[in-house]
Amino acid sequence: MSYKNYPMVSRVVFGRSSFNQLGDIIAPKRLNRKAPFIFLVDDVFKGNSEMTSRIPLAYDDQLLYISAEHEPKTSQVDELVEQIILNYKDRPSGIIGIGGGTILDLAKAVAIMLTNEGEAKNYQGWDLVKNPAIYHVGIPTLSGTGAEVSRTTILTGPERKLGINSDYTPFDQVILDPELTKDVPKEQWFYTGMDCYVHCIESLNGTFLNAFSQSYGEKALELCKEIFLGDSLSQEESADKLMMASWHGGMSIAYSQVGVAHAMSYGLGYLLGVKHGVGNCIVFEHLEEYYPEGVAMYKAMRKKHNINIPQGICANLSDDEFDTMIDVALSLEPLWENAVGKDWKKVITRDKLKALYKKM
Amino acid sequence: MSYKNYPMVSRVVFGRSSFNQLGDIIAPKRLNRKAPFIFLVDDVFKGNSEMTSRIPLAYDDQLLYISAEHEPKTSQVDELVEQIILNYKDRPSGIIGIGGGTILDLAKAVAIMLTNEGEAKNYQGWDLVKNPAIYHVGIPTLSGTGAEVSRTTILTGPERKLGINSDYTPFDQVILDPELTKDVPKEQWFYTGMDCYVHCIESLNGTFLNAFSQSYGEKALELCKEIFLGDSLSQEESADKLMMASWHGGMSIAYSQVGVAHAMSYGLGYLLGVKHGVGNCIVFEHLEEYYPEGVAMYKAMRKKHNINIPQGICANLSDDEFDTMIDVALSLEPLWENAVGKDWKKVITRDKLKALYKKM
Repeated sequence: MSYKNYPMVSRVVFGRSSFNQLGDIIAPKRLNRKAPFIFLVDDVFKGNSEMTSRIPLAYDDQLLYISAEHEPKTSQVDELVEQIILNYKDRPSGIIGIGGGTILDLAKAVAIMLTNEGEAKNYQGWDLVKNPAIYHVGIPTLSGTGAEVSRTTILTGPERKLGINSDYTPFDQVILDPELTKDVPKEQWFYTGMDCYVHCIESLNGTFLNAFSQSYGEKALELCKEIFLGDSLSQEESADKLMMASWHGGMSIAYSQVGVAHAMSYGLGYLLGVKHGVGNCIVFEHLEEYYPEGVAMYKAMRKKHNINIPQGICANLSDDEFDTMIDVALSLEPLWENAVGKDWKKVITRDKLKALYKKM
Repeated sequence: MSYKNYPMVSRVVFGRSSFNQLGDIIAPKRLNRKAPFIFLVDDVFKGNSEMTSRIPLAYDDQLLYISAEHEPKTSQVDELVEQIILNYKDRPSGIIGIGGGTILDLAKAVAIMLTNEGEAKNYQGWDLVKNPAIYHVGIPTLSGTGAEVSRTTILTGPERKLGINSDYTPFDQVILDPELTKDVPKEQWFYTGMDCYVHCIESLNGTFLNAFSQSYGEKALELCKEIFLGDSLSQEESADKLMMASWHGGMSIAYSQVGVAHAMSYGLGYLLGVKHGVGNCIVFEHLEEYYPEGVAMYKAMRKKHNINIPQGICANLSDDEFDTMIDVALSLEPLWENAVGKDWKKVITRDKLKALYKKM
């Protein structure tokens, strides 16, 4: 048996207003005046001068606002890379992603594709990346995805929804500034927070569990309980803790694997473009069979915060469309093996998944 | 206010028997056949063929057995570096430390001093290291110190007991194989485990605490309670969890600071050569004033495992000797500021420390 040799984020800063240190942090990483930093920023911050005035643009640096309305696509990565190559003679000094999981995953993927030939879709999978990425920095403005700490970048390609999993994917630098999450709308806060919660449940109830993952997963789960079921935290404390829960939850799945909710949520995301956070919630509502305690607690959290989960999104789908979702979900074999065990194929049938999807 | 930009361990493997992966892991890091790997191995493993037969020596690689009977010294680092330079024309491909905190700290320091001029004592302090260290790997065979995850390497120099704290100090690779801790004698297990426990108490009760440190410290503390006060764990589970507690406890102080016990334990170590783990215990017995709950729980752990703590080690010391210990302890200003607050100098007097040392 061989264990993963996990590549960690190289450096991390944590603290309220630590975002102000970004300029000092990246300055020594500038290769030359013509090698720009490219800032990929969630377009919810467009016109938000409190944020944008603090982005340390210099020389030929470029700020690109990116919509996170849709899940990130391989084609979007290719377009961004092409645009950067056309605009600049020099390879950039670095890519700085500022946003939620969509923006962070795009930043990681662009940093990889600037030094690796061909199209992003060719790198979806495990350890297909040949060359180290350029310097890349992740600054989450939304907590829960774990994208800040993982060695993957989940992308929707023409054929599948799958990550570019590689040792070159993790950020060289992460800045954890919980202040940046203060304007997140409540539903978004909940959906993305539940991504973290589901990471914990899937990791802690998986067959791949080990003491490393368990310790991170238990802490993240404990923080989620405090945040989503407790009443004792101030808004600031809650935001600080959710940012750490996301980090620890990410580390937990990094050294184990996710499970049923993620596999099925990827199916919804691929076919219907359902965003990952809310997709997890839509699926998790119906997974009592696999995670009885986890689903019960999730429902208590959802009720406490009075969150509506979309229903009936699969009501009018054709058989072909169900098949497409089922194909995507079943292709994620490690997730099923983690959730159900080595003999998962005996238990997880197409009919079973179809029946589950039909409830959503 | 500026937050630390913490450099993390680059890669980590966790798992029983993961030590067997060492050869595969370091092979791609070999610079050439004449650039050896130097293995610094705790001499308790001398003649232990179960361990030594698995050390992947090749070409001109060298295995040096090191006694961990004494705390590591700057002069010892200088001697090891000189020996390596005299023996080999080529700079080594890497340094592999296999042992407890003493060996791990020596490995980190030797890796630094192979690329930085002068003597190790000149680098005791914060951020004095100019050049990146050579590739270095840490493999703990004893859990609790946090040396596997920290950016310091505590050394006793001619003038002080203080770490080489730098961004180049952390290991490039850590292998966490709890199986390697199975033959640790019970008292050693307890003393070193208490190093982790004390890290948690000092971090969680310090004025430097933040949500990052708190989340790691709380998890490590919870694991310590389970290990040292619980009855439900198998020996293997307990060893797995203590290795993770050490890791998380190390991360907790990495992003905050230790406190009174460490400051005073360094005084004992400097003057009397008391090993750090037992030194922490000797001191912690008398710190109810600073950590009332922490000391009570520590005493319960010590009783449960029927551990004897040396007493009266300061009984026959001269005033000059007390002064030496007090000088060492008081020089560690960040530790006192963390423990007692900005105005610590008003509270922590020489007389107070002398009275405390006299009890030990």
